[in-house]
Amino acid sequence: MALVGVSRALISRLGPRAATRSLVSVGRVPDAPKIGLLTLEKGPVNSLDTSMLDAIRAGVGELENAGDVKAFVLTSKFDGTVFSAGLDLLEMHDPASRADLERFWTAVQDCWLSLYTTPLGAVACVNGTSPAGGCLLATACDYRIMADDPKFTIGLNEAQFGLVAPDFFLDVYRNTVGQRNAEWLAGTGALLPPKAALAVNLVDEVVDQADALPAAVAAAAKLAKLPFDARAETKRRLRLKTATDLVESKARCTEVFCDFALKDDVQAALTAYVASLKQRKAA
Amino acid sequence: MALVGVSRALISRLGPRAATRSLVSVGRVPDAPKIGLLTLEKGPVNSLDTSMLDAIRAGVGELENAGDVKAFVLTSKFDGTVFSAGLDLLEMHDPASRADLERFWTAVQDCWLSLYTTPLGAVACVNGTSPAGGCLLATACDYRIMADDPKFTIGLNEAQFGLVAPDFFLDVYRNTVGQRNAEWLAGTGALLPPKAALAVNLVDEVVDQADALPAAVAAAAKLAKLPFDARAETKRRLRLKTATDLVESKARCTEVFCDFALKDDVQAALTAYVASLKQRKAA
Amino acid sequence: MALVGVSRALISRLGPRAATRSLVSVGRVPDAPKIGLLTLEKGPVNSLDTSMLDAIRAGVGELENAGDVKAFVLTSKFDGTVFSAGLDLLEMHDPASRADLERFWTAVQDCWLSLYTTPLGAVACVNGTSPAGGCLLATACDYRIMADDPKFTIGLNEAQFGLVAPDFFLDVYRNTVGQRNAEWLAGTGALLPPKAALAVNLVDEVVDQADALPAAVAAAAKLAKLPFDARAETKRRLRLKTATDLVESKARCTEVFCDFALKDDVQAALTAYVASLKQRKAA
Repeated sequence: MALVGVSRALISRLGPRAATRSLVSVGRVPDAPKIGLLTLEKGPVNSLDTSMLDAIRAGVGELENAGDVKAFVLTSKFDGTVFSAGLDLLEMHDPASRADLERFWTAVQDCWLSLYTTPLGAVACVNGTSPAGGCLLATACDYRIMADDPKFTIGLNEAQFGLVAPDFFLDVYRNTVGQRNAEWLAGTGALLPPKAALAVNLVDEVVDQADALPAAVAAAAKLAKLPFDARAETKRRLRLKTATDLVESKARCTEVFCDFALKDDVQAALTAYVASLKQRKAA
Repeated sequence: MALVGVSRALISRLGPRAATRSLVSVGRVPDAPKIGLLTLEKGPVNSLDTSMLDAIRAGVGELENAGDVKAFVLTSKFDGTVFSAGLDLLEMHDPASRADLERFWTAVQDCWLSLYTTPLGAVACVNGTSPAGGCLLATACDYRIMADDPKFTIGLNEAQFGLVAPDFFLDVYRNTVGQRNAEWLAGTGALLPPKAALAVNLVDEVVDQADALPAAVAAAAKLAKLPFDARAETKRRLRLKTATDLVESKARCTEVFCDFALKDDVQAALTAYVASLKQRKAA
Repeated sequence: MALVGVSRALISRLGPRAATRSLVSVGRVPDAPKIGLLTLEKGPVNSLDTSMLDAIRAGVGELENAGDVKAFVLTSKFDGTVFSAGLDLLEMHDPASRADLERFWTAVQDCWLSLYTTPLGAVACVNGTSPAGGCLLATACDYRIMADDPKFTIGLNEAQFGLVAPDFFLDVYRNTVGQRNAEWLAGTGALLPPKAALAVNLVDEVVDQADALPAAVAAAAKLAKLPFDARAETKRRLRLKTATDLVESKARCTEVFCDFALKDDVQAALTAYVASLKQRKAA
């Protein structure tokens, strides 16, 4: 399935870092012109830094403004390895200023809001591992297909490494797997392989790797065929409370995050983390 | 299972149209005198116009006031074909006045509130197909038996034909199948055959057509045997928030509905719908 | 698995009645020193009177203050018979004053809050039958292991004997089994054997009686291994609304309870209940 008419226009808007390489590509599914394809392609693991978050949001906006796109598939270029490794913790390490941290966290919030509240139908093709922020991207969509490889996992695993998923991560997790499962899974930072994710409704279908994109396109086609306004308004109403909860608490949520990130022990842990990343690269 | 002492007293209250034929019958299950039987019998498909909605509400009230009835079964006279086809869209077409539309929508709200908040135990015997408003009637009850015929379906399918289920439809859907299933099923306007409905808890039992009414009576008998006040108060507490949400938003909800129904394109769509109904009758 | 260092210091704080026998024991799991063991041992059935409720709360507090305990198992000394029979209705019978009733109900609220909001990981080892208040203790924990004996049941069965589970019982039931199951199960006062409880997520694992405590210790060990603050904060956020709802309504909830308990017909029913208990003892 080749991409036709991939637009990279948005990338020029994203400043010097983004311009050096593609972060996302925005295109169409060849045989289904009403179905967009938003591909995460920020190597090596689609980590979500401020630029990537802005690029995803811009990609959603571009598909919304296209006019003829009714639904889209969100997937990863790194088919068979990683969907998204989640938030880029380097954004939190030794920030030049509190304003930089605020910009990062606002980007997280706005990226999520753009995906969660898009009137377009959105289907996640989880064709690789998808922890933490990767899971958040997937659960913001209307439907989730996961490739059936037991190496791939999905879940809010923040608690495993000493972080706390913010309220809107937890809200959408709870909406997806229910209160009881959310308490246990987020509380233990569980990462679920595909079939375990299916068992708690964290994903909706588990299919062979080769079938993941076609299955996602089929789900998007199902959404695209529906009367657009009625489907979008139904989605809006059912998601209104969760979206509003974030919108109304954005500033406070950002403050909590910045206070946390600027703590001495958190910065020390991040310094150690950065050192370990460098060591891994060197190895 | 014959009806004993079917009361049609309420029909005289319902004005000229209703008086010409029976809309609902209110009776008792013969061998279980504490168990009421509320039968929808407005041919051909138990469509819910203002009169029918008022009749259902009056029927619930009559059972409540009977004093010795502890629980009842809500079912359809058209066993094997239709439970209820849902709201009568003709009520929305070319209304004489906005006041007529308001009366219709208030009847929808009040009918649902009467079923949802009745202190009586209520069991839906879904012995035929049950889309949209039919699904709403069923989910307002405490328990749902569905006859096992793959031709029968149940669900909020409004989105399929360009309408949006109102907030209280969505609230009770979410309460029944959970947030995640509600998003997907209402968003896609899905109609589920009995076993698929059972899999998401939209119905509680699927039995052979011939066993549906006896199974519903057995469930109602289980409810009738419990200490009345304790059961009713437990139900009241668990449903309080959802009921209150509607009560507090009734006027706004009615306004939203009337604004929508009076739009030119909605009226044009309804005109086309009415024409197609006439054509179908003529064929 | 023997108890090491069981502390009964707290018992001296609990006044004359408690001092005459042990209500709970607070210790450690021998081979897992970070894992506490809170054992209900108020014979014959761990009924929850004011003293017992205070003792459980004190036990939770003692484990929290120990410093090195990260998680604990809540279980019953009466392995194979009863986990807890629930609230002691004798506390409601012929109270010396309304103040006594208020003290009892405040103890119920505070005991539950202490378990529900403890930053420690909490695992219920339900090694016997567990109705009503027993179910409440279990659902306040983070995880539930139930011994696989069909004689054991668990559930909010208040409606069966004419009582109404208070709002915070219903809230946590709803959080655990979902709105739809909570309505039916609490509304009918259902008591579920282990496998039925597992099917609705009321318990998380069903194992052989002999394996129940080891399985609970394993679950607690899993919780204890996680970064403490991140796990505890995730739990706090996911339980904040339900806990806050009770905290904010404590006084009103107590008033409702006292008004109910002091009704003539309720006292008459309790007098009959007490007489039946005496008869049973005499038989």
